[in-house]
Amino acid sequence: MSNHQRGKLYVISGPSGTGKGTICKELTARGAMDISISMTTRNPRPGEVDGKDYFFVTHEEFEKAIAEGKMLEYANVFDNIYGTPKEAVIQRLERGRNVILEIDVQGGLQVKQSMPEAVLIFILPPSLAVLRERLVGRQTDTPEVIEKRLAEAINEIKLLGEYDYYVVNDVLEDAVNDVKGIVAAEARRVPDKVKPIIGKYEREKGE
Amino acid sequence: MSNHQRGKLYVISGPSGTGKGTICKELTARGAMDISISMTTRNPRPGEVDGKDYFFVTHEEFEKAIAEGKMLEYANVFDNIYGTPKEAVIQRLERGRNVILEIDVQGGLQVKQSMPEAVLIFILPPSLAVLRERLVGRQTDTPEVIEKRLAEAINEIKLLGEYDYYVVNDVLEDAVNDVKGIVAAEARRVPDKVKPIIGKYEREKGE
Repeated sequence: MSNHQRGKLYVISGPSGTGKGTICKELTARGAMDISISMTTRNPRPGEVDGKDYFFVTHEEFEKAIAEGKMLEYANVFDNIYGTPKEAVIQRLERGRNVILEIDVQGGLQVKQSMPEAVLIFILPPSLAVLRERLVGRQTDTPEVIEKRLAEAINEIKLLGEYDYYVVNDVLEDAVNDVKGIVAAEARRVPDKVKPIIGKYEREKGE
Repeated sequence: MSNHQRGKLYVISGPSGTGKGTICKELTARGAMDISISMTTRNPRPGEVDGKDYFFVTHEEFEKAIAEGKMLEYANVFDNIYGTPKEAVIQRLERGRNVILEIDVQGGLQVKQSMPEAVLIFILPPSLAVLRERLVGRQTDTPEVIEKRLAEAINEIKLLGEYDYYVVNDVLEDAVNDVKGIVAAEARRVPDKVKPIIGKYEREKGE
């Protein structure tokens, strides 16, 4: 049996435009944690690399993976399916690595159901006004899409109670430090199996 | 109804000589948190001030407080009783202050039973050898008392599984930062009542 502590699974969610992608990038910088690569049926966008940005699969392949219980969570978004393959996540956790999933709230709730030990972190915008500004600033969405995203944001925020932690992303650097602080504190949590920790002192006493 | 978040109760425990007193002093520096003042039947030592170091009371007074359910936890140590008066702690929490109790593991378990929302942090020595060195270095205990304290240390450490977090006090500054990090992360926990947080966004949307 291996002696190291199992890694922890972190779910980072939050409305579109709250900066969760940037936060996740900072968390995984210099190999501190692993980010899980999602699987999707949508077509790669220019520059996206299969196995790096996403695992790009057909609808048939995705539905087979669902049927075989190989997905930790998945969701239909417009006409495509997005999800997290279970196997890779579990292997990493067993090797003692912390793994991050950047997924939406519905996905987060699916993960919590199948892995209640996962740590769910919700990234909130300082206000809807600021969120709107950020979405406008990205210049990727039409005004209609932005209003739709804001309505979705409220629906997501209403599920905050299902999450373990929340971080308001006002100043990015502070938000990144808040999340890093949560990860550091979680590393100080007394694990279910305390024997390896206590045993060290008992053996010393026995000498 | 007041609008602020209720404060959190932190229990800091650990074997004698692990430096938990120093850690608590650092945590309460500049009024960041309140430390609870214990009640005791033992006589004041030179320099100790009633109401600051301890509330010094008679055995009769202490037993009356126990009988009236006014103690959050208490324990007999040799011929004296030590404990935490409930009222002052609850008042502070209701005012939104975080409160620290520096008490032994048995006391910590009593607190957890009556206030399951309390956050229990266990301070561990890097090893029993280091703990022995520290106890010897204090020059306050006879070799027999030191051996007794080490045996007690093991008995306390065996109850680690009942605690929420553990911090190894190797370098004091790191241990203080670890505990501060736990307190900071706990402040990011989604509270039982999420209405005040969600409401802010809902009101904004309603505008």
